[in-house]
Amino acid sequence: MKVYGDLQSGNCYKVKLLLAQLGLPHEWVHMNILEKQTRTPAFLSKNPNGKIPLLEIEEGVYLPESDAILHYLAEGTPFLPSERLHRAQVLQWLFFEQYSHEPYIAVARYIIRYLGRPEKHEPRLQEKMSPGYAALEVMEKHLAGRRFFVAEQYTIADIGLYAYTHVAHEGGFELSRFPAVEAWLARVKSQPGHITMSGE
Amino acid sequence: MKVYGDLQSGNCYKVKLLLAQLGLPHEWVHMNILEKQTRTPAFLSKNPNGKIPLLEIEEGVYLPESDAILHYLAEGTPFLPSERLHRAQVLQWLFFEQYSHEPYIAVARYIIRYLGRPEKHEPRLQEKMSPGYAALEVMEKHLAGRRFFVAEQYTIADIGLYAYTHVAHEGGFELSRFPAVEAWLARVKSQPGHITMSGE
Repeated sequence: MKVYGDLQSGNCYKVKLLLAQLGLPHEWVHMNILEKQTRTPAFLSKNPNGKIPLLEIEEGVYLPESDAILHYLAEGTPFLPSERLHRAQVLQWLFFEQYSHEPYIAVARYIIRYLGRPEKHEPRLQEKMSPGYAALEVMEKHLAGRRFFVAEQYTIADIGLYAYTHVAHEGGFELSRFPAVEAWLARVKSQPGHITMSGE
Repeated sequence: MKVYGDLQSGNCYKVKLLLAQLGLPHEWVHMNILEKQTRTPAFLSKNPNGKIPLLEIEEGVYLPESDAILHYLAEGTPFLPSERLHRAQVLQWLFFEQYSHEPYIAVARYIIRYLGRPEKHEPRLQEKMSPGYAALEVMEKHLAGRRFFVAEQYTIADIGLYAYTHVAHEGGFELSRFPAVEAWLARVKSQPGHITMSGE
């Protein structure tokens, strides 16, 4: 297997984290987004949507979308529960992540960390704050009295949400307002085989 | 089963369409978004993220996120392929729909159709056009030479993408630029048991 990605992207890191915890050997092909390496004709022939991460399952067979990749890799492992409702809840949180969380928290971090918070993006950055905090609030309520997002076990729902939540401060979000989220972040970090965004 | 939703919302319609094609009896509870019925304490106790559709599987057991609901309902039916890679590709297109398609095409339609295209939203509306067309372009390329999105069979990937694509013109998008998409829309519409957004 081969993964095209950039470990500083939470969407890519979540795939690397699961691969590490599954102990699956793979080749990591670093892609530089700022240099538009995902927009070259060669890459677009692999993923017409021009996004990373991209999993190459076997030569010429490509799977994009970070959370679809997590689901594909986790099937049949303890990272995806076997009970039907639990599996649906894992997907519920992964769709929540991509629709209600990532577009605010990850994009705010992108504007600050990758783009260097240019003046012209300040209004866009400010628009991300309120919905980003709303997503963290939904997580806080859910995690109060729970150890993990689904079925009280560590699943790809946790991996998917951990990726950008643990660096939300880099997007200007104060995580100290969310004690249950902070306790959950520590719990995820302490799982066997955990690696950081630096790959350590 | 009970569904809280508004049929004029593509996210809700996709659930209704699958339920109809599966022949599953259910109660439909109409929710008015403009009257903020999804933001009441009663509804937030059912779905803390305050969004529809919401599936009530049995009394007190709720599943939000339209595409997680589709996946839950489709498991074990011909609407979700059995082969592992095909199932991953179905999820790929559902995540594409929620991340790269809905936030542009559905939101543009919302601004025009629900909000009446107020002047103050014009810049926001204009920002939706280019990424919305990019999503349609990705679909057009994929559908050239294919009948359906995955495994040459009608699946929830088609249902998920049909919901807002077939009303993209209400968001100001010219579908005539995308002949393969238009042919696919007609193909989806001709499936047994198809119902329209009016529920007919």
